[in-house]
Amino acid sequence: MTGFVKFMNRSLVIHYLSKLLLCGSALFLLPCAVSLYYHENDIALVFFMTALIVAIISTPLAVIKPKNKQMYAREGLIIVALLWVIYPLIGALPFYISGEIPHFMDALFESISGFTTTGATILTDIEALSRGMLFWRSFTHWVGGMGVLVLAIAILPSSNDSMYLMRAECAGPQVGKIVPKGKNSAMYLYIIYAGLTVLTVIFLLLGGMPLFDSVCHAMGAAGTGGFGIKNEGIAYYNSAYIDGVLTVSMILFGVNFSIFYFMIIRRFKDIIKNTELKVYFAVIAAATGLIMLNIYPIYNSVGKCFRYAVFQVSSIMTSTGYGTADYTNWPEFSQMILMILMFVGACAGSTGGGLKVQRIIIMFKSAVKSIKKTLSPKSVNIVKSDDKAMDVETVHGVHAYIIIYIGLFFASMLIISLNNADFATTFSSVSTCINNIGPGLNRVGPSENFSFFSDLSKTVLSIDMLLGRLECFPLIILFSPSVWRRKF
Amino acid sequence: MTGFVKFMNRSLVIHYLSKLLLCGSALFLLPCAVSLYYHENDIALVFFMTALIVAIISTPLAVIKPKNKQMYAREGLIIVALLWVIYPLIGALPFYISGEIPHFMDALFESISGFTTTGATILTDIEALSRGMLFWRSFTHWVGGMGVLVLAIAILPSSNDSMYLMRAECAGPQVGKIVPKGKNSAMYLYIIYAGLTVLTVIFLLLGGMPLFDSVCHAMGAAGTGGFGIKNEGIAYYNSAYIDGVLTVSMILFGVNFSIFYFMIIRRFKDIIKNTELKVYFAVIAAATGLIMLNIYPIYNSVGKCFRYAVFQVSSIMTSTGYGTADYTNWPEFSQMILMILMFVGACAGSTGGGLKVQRIIIMFKSAVKSIKKTLSPKSVNIVKSDDKAMDVETVHGVHAYIIIYIGLFFASMLIISLNNADFATTFSSVSTCINNIGPGLNRVGPSENFSFFSDLSKTVLSIDMLLGRLECFPLIILFSPSVWRRKF
Repeated sequence: MTGFVKFMNRSLVIHYLSKLLLCGSALFLLPCAVSLYYHENDIALVFFMTALIVAIISTPLAVIKPKNKQMYAREGLIIVALLWVIYPLIGALPFYISGEIPHFMDALFESISGFTTTGATILTDIEALSRGMLFWRSFTHWVGGMGVLVLAIAILPSSNDSMYLMRAECAGPQVGKIVPKGKNSAMYLYIIYAGLTVLTVIFLLLGGMPLFDSVCHAMGAAGTGGFGIKNEGIAYYNSAYIDGVLTVSMILFGVNFSIFYFMIIRRFKDIIKNTELKVYFAVIAAATGLIMLNIYPIYNSVGKCFRYAVFQVSSIMTSTGYGTADYTNWPEFSQMILMILMFVGACAGSTGGGLKVQRIIIMFKSAVKSIKKTLSPKSVNIVKSDDKAMDVETVHGVHAYIIIYIGLFFASMLIISLNNADFATTFSSVSTCINNIGPGLNRVGPSENFSFFSDLSKTVLSIDMLLGRLECFPLIILFSPSVWRRKF
Repeated sequence: MTGFVKFMNRSLVIHYLSKLLLCGSALFLLPCAVSLYYHENDIALVFFMTALIVAIISTPLAVIKPKNKQMYAREGLIIVALLWVIYPLIGALPFYISGEIPHFMDALFESISGFTTTGATILTDIEALSRGMLFWRSFTHWVGGMGVLVLAIAILPSSNDSMYLMRAECAGPQVGKIVPKGKNSAMYLYIIYAGLTVLTVIFLLLGGMPLFDSVCHAMGAAGTGGFGIKNEGIAYYNSAYIDGVLTVSMILFGVNFSIFYFMIIRRFKDIIKNTELKVYFAVIAAATGLIMLNIYPIYNSVGKCFRYAVFQVSSIMTSTGYGTADYTNWPEFSQMILMILMFVGACAGSTGGGLKVQRIIIMFKSAVKSIKKTLSPKSVNIVKSDDKAMDVETVHGVHAYIIIYIGLFFASMLIISLNNADFATTFSSVSTCINNIGPGLNRVGPSENFSFFSDLSKTVLSIDMLLGRLECFPLIILFSPSVWRRKF
């Protein structure tokens, strides 16, 4: 084994990390401008100082060039993992320094929840926050949704290097095949992401939502995050039109982005053949229908049932977490459907969380094959995807992922249970964090928050959010001793 | 594919099935004798008539010999699956005919719970049952624990044929390697099983437990079932000695039976090398220790804490389900440990349920390998077990099993949620049934029962118990259309 183990290129990792941090410091200038516009000068200063400090620390490190510029999978994984730890740490500073979230662990939880596009909050009164801080919360969703990828493309010299970062960060079992390769095509993703966000803002404005609210909610939908700016959530606006716009927006951001790319380059055949897309829409339709039947006695109106059901299904399945109705008041069957959707998640290659529809399809197909194999032990065991035979490595990778996921899930539940909440709270808090959703059941339901958890639990849930966003591997590797072994 | 599919040898299946049923009819004579001894003549008649009817129906079918005597994996799986549906159906008759369980679905649930060694009951007052019926309940555990294997060995001509039944029925990922092959060595298993049961009876008698109670509880421990004969459970006897005897007994019946076989034939090296055994004891020790720390504030006595903790850990991990303390009053951390142990289960090749320690080990090792592979994509991916490299098929089989298990778990939860109980009840009822434990949380906790569930839920939970006992595959194959396709 050790023959294969390459030692980590530390200077390369530090070089790229500090370059990415330098770019990241610019992120704080936008909420700074928003604060100035709303005459929140103190808050503007906090953002400006944070940007300045990050820039001052990262510049000298970014200037030093590494001797060996060769990047491998290992370096890609480490850069992404470290970035996803360092960014939220820096992102927590404005909350903490401004005193709007006075406890640092809370600020960190909120920041991680933002960047990982989870949307779980420790705030008991969201509306007490300043405009600048509310914008920053939603903006972290938008940045986190697209990931460091965009930044990486801007600074990395070779498209091969950015592929390593993409592989480490992007969602789904077959990244290389799903995400278009190269600098130019990745730029398309960026344009699609920004374009859809702007469209959402425009449609929300048309519904009479104020500009600030529209921008924040559009960013939350784009990143499939879920941070709102009102204590009541989307229910505050009480508008079927706004619910509808956000529903469509959430569903679109849960689609594999390569579908939009194929639309632009007019490869419609690839869209029609895409099994994941069909299953994704079929699951949304089936779940909405079942919940409508189940909640009809509560609302006594098909229209209302459809409005609330399709919104909640889209919100949970795409891992956004916006709410227009408190589903914990719905019958248990509806809650169970939503709970299962949490694990299914959105499409691979989208900004959404969960296990991803594509993985579920692969799991289902490999299970059917196994059953067939039990009957006819000599048959050949090939799992197909979109009419193409999938390689054994991918299927094995999906299996391994599920097993690691389950292991981390149970380990997290065990630690969270020290909080002595009830089973539904413990289970759903882990589920909602590791799948990057936001709300759960009981004490972490849509009208509740995560403030009652101990610092230990908040730490575990924060790690779960990161694990979910990075799909476990990069973060686990960060703790692998062999990575940190020095050449001797 | 179809080139490989063999058509089912129906006459062979019917021939062996009816032979096994004929043997099975003799099972009713034992509770018949017990009833006569306790002067419950009506009950004795019920058992006798059931035996007679089964014998009359199965004899003519058993006499007809099939033309083609060749048995394949398919026939083995079908025979086992059908037997596990028909036996509990017949086993439910005495409960129903006697009127002691007046609703047939309840009688069937109780019977399936007995044969699958689950121990979940729909009875609200156990002590209201007649002696004969109490004995029959516990006796189904004893029969189900060892499975149809024993009967199969008695009637099947070739040891190769019984291997197919064994593979279909026995627990664990690598049956062929774990269970000793051939008629003679399988007889050893039978002797070990009976011997350990008798030992348990003797030790219970020494503690002052009446003979009837001792026999019933020993059979429940042997099959890792969990049906008691007192409403209070084992707590009724309030004896540290009896708790201790049952703890040791449960732990032993959760061990891979080949370990005892190796002890008899003095292959101690194989015992020492056995990783599963070490992990099994390590998990029991660790779980007991953690629960002791957690419940100390309740009992304020190390002795009591140890007594209750080790009993409950052994009871849940071996999937027995006996209770001396209502763990739903313990802190959530302890409950979570027990909940996780439900999934871990006992050793492969034991009478216990759950996923089996061996599968957890294989899952853990294959996960570690995957992480290493992410770091060094060119490394070779071999999972080792007891210092031997495991074949890819076994690892893949474990993965497939887990995925099918999760799929069935979620599907069951969805249907059970129609009962509109709470999440903890729904989750734990499926968990306790599919893992063949018995008690769960909240409304299915140790001092509760399954009577409140709808017939639909009882049916789903019954299927879950069978799925758990047969480790999914045989039962799923029973519903596979290709099995029932006629040759044309």
